[in-house]
Amino acid sequence: MTTGKVTLLSAGPGDLDLLTIKAAKALAAADIVLLDDLANPGIVSLAPQARVIRVGKRGGCKSTPQAFIQRLMQRYALKGLHVVRVKGGDALLFGRAGEELTALRRAQIPVEIINGISSGFAAAASLGISLTHREHCQGVTFVTAHKQDHGEPNWAALAATGTTLAIYMGMTRIESLCQALLSALPALTPAAVVQWAGTAAERCWLGRLDHLAIDAVKEGLGSPAVILVGNAVGEAVNWVTHKESSAFAVAEQTSFNAWQDNAEAVAHAA
Amino acid sequence: MTTGKVTLLSAGPGDLDLLTIKAAKALAAADIVLLDDLANPGIVSLAPQARVIRVGKRGGCKSTPQAFIQRLMQRYALKGLHVVRVKGGDALLFGRAGEELTALRRAQIPVEIINGISSGFAAAASLGISLTHREHCQGVTFVTAHKQDHGEPNWAALAATGTTLAIYMGMTRIESLCQALLSALPALTPAAVVQWAGTAAERCWLGRLDHLAIDAVKEGLGSPAVILVGNAVGEAVNWVTHKESSAFAVAEQTSFNAWQDNAEAVAHAA
Repeated sequence: MTTGKVTLLSAGPGDLDLLTIKAAKALAAADIVLLDDLANPGIVSLAPQARVIRVGKRGGCKSTPQAFIQRLMQRYALKGLHVVRVKGGDALLFGRAGEELTALRRAQIPVEIINGISSGFAAAASLGISLTHREHCQGVTFVTAHKQDHGEPNWAALAATGTTLAIYMGMTRIESLCQALLSALPALTPAAVVQWAGTAAERCWLGRLDHLAIDAVKEGLGSPAVILVGNAVGEAVNWVTHKESSAFAVAEQTSFNAWQDNAEAVAHAA
Repeated sequence: MTTGKVTLLSAGPGDLDLLTIKAAKALAAADIVLLDDLANPGIVSLAPQARVIRVGKRGGCKSTPQAFIQRLMQRYALKGLHVVRVKGGDALLFGRAGEELTALRRAQIPVEIINGISSGFAAAASLGISLTHREHCQGVTFVTAHKQDHGEPNWAALAATGTTLAIYMGMTRIESLCQALLSALPALTPAAVVQWAGTAAERCWLGRLDHLAIDAVKEGLGSPAVILVGNAVGEAVNWVTHKESSAFAVAEQTSFNAWQDNAEAVAHAA
């Protein structure tokens, strides 16, 4: 059995201060770093002695095939090296970690997993809300809009749970997903988009579900972004009026106007 | 306006190495630390200059009332101090952060939120699985079994999403929740319990949904624990046979037996 190993390392949303201490230690000890597209490239400064190989694999773009990444990990680990596979967010959420773990187990290569902050959590922090405010919901569902067979998730079933929805990889099909959600949820359901959550480039849109598809795109928000939908998101309104972060500057006024409309419409409906 | 501020700090699942670097920096700069029950008490070593106040609030037990915790935060922040409110896991998931944020905003006290690793992620890492294996599901739902009005979540609706279920605070009502899930999901659905995920005291049970209520309790597993249910959990079987972690020693053999039963039953059914 090899003395090498693979660490599946979660790089979090981007801000290097949002790495765990455990992740920083693993990077410092790495021989090989396989770097994902969505991870902050500055992370390599924490792995000064490692050979860095970029293996970006963004949906739809030219990319390193998954099978090749898996072969790379195995090749270096079987040479006795410590391979750190860096993934954006938390490696265990939408990260193809399942397939990598299976391949590494088959090759009898020891694997360590280091958790991180998924961008849905960073998005909620940016909006100043809890993902699960107990007056509004009992949970949160993290779902990808991008299915393996190119179909859509069952949006009606997801809406029926009453949980906050944190939708990843949804910006390229925002129209169809909003349409599907609107057939199951009230038009006034609070909604938000946070692009580049947890990075210096972070931008937000905040409003209501029936404005989401048009207004968030009009604001210029695109991938990578997390879309949040649900009554817990409504708690963000007070926060936006107080928050002074420059990240909010772009979308703030429009968002707040949308919010005022929303509040007024709810008041009229009541 | 006060020069004080409050940091809602996510302490992660317990292992201090799973704190973010940002959290460690905030603790080092804290004047007051308000410490939650579920956070590792060793965390105070990272806040050497802070006054530490323990404000545990475990479900059902004798505890510090939420309103009192909020008053404490405000009082110290309004004195110009940097108050760090330490919460287990990620503060934005089942942590009453929503209420605390509202109260702090009303008092015009600046708030910073620092994300952390929620125990559901640590549980998946411990089992060596992705929460969302794309061959099995499009997402994961984090849900608390403990509703504000003491009712139950809509388990049938949750099951209908096809997402992995990560159930928090479920051990005290495991029988009723398993019964409800079994009316919506196949008896052979893979299930797991991870108690004290991401700590040195971590213990796991791994099996199938129809054995969960009896066997996990028979193994002595109780709160605090995360219950994982869904086909993505089935990927854990190979891992358990390879993993050498002592944390698995207690439950491993029983779990593996349960798994073999499961695999055989599935084979017979096919």
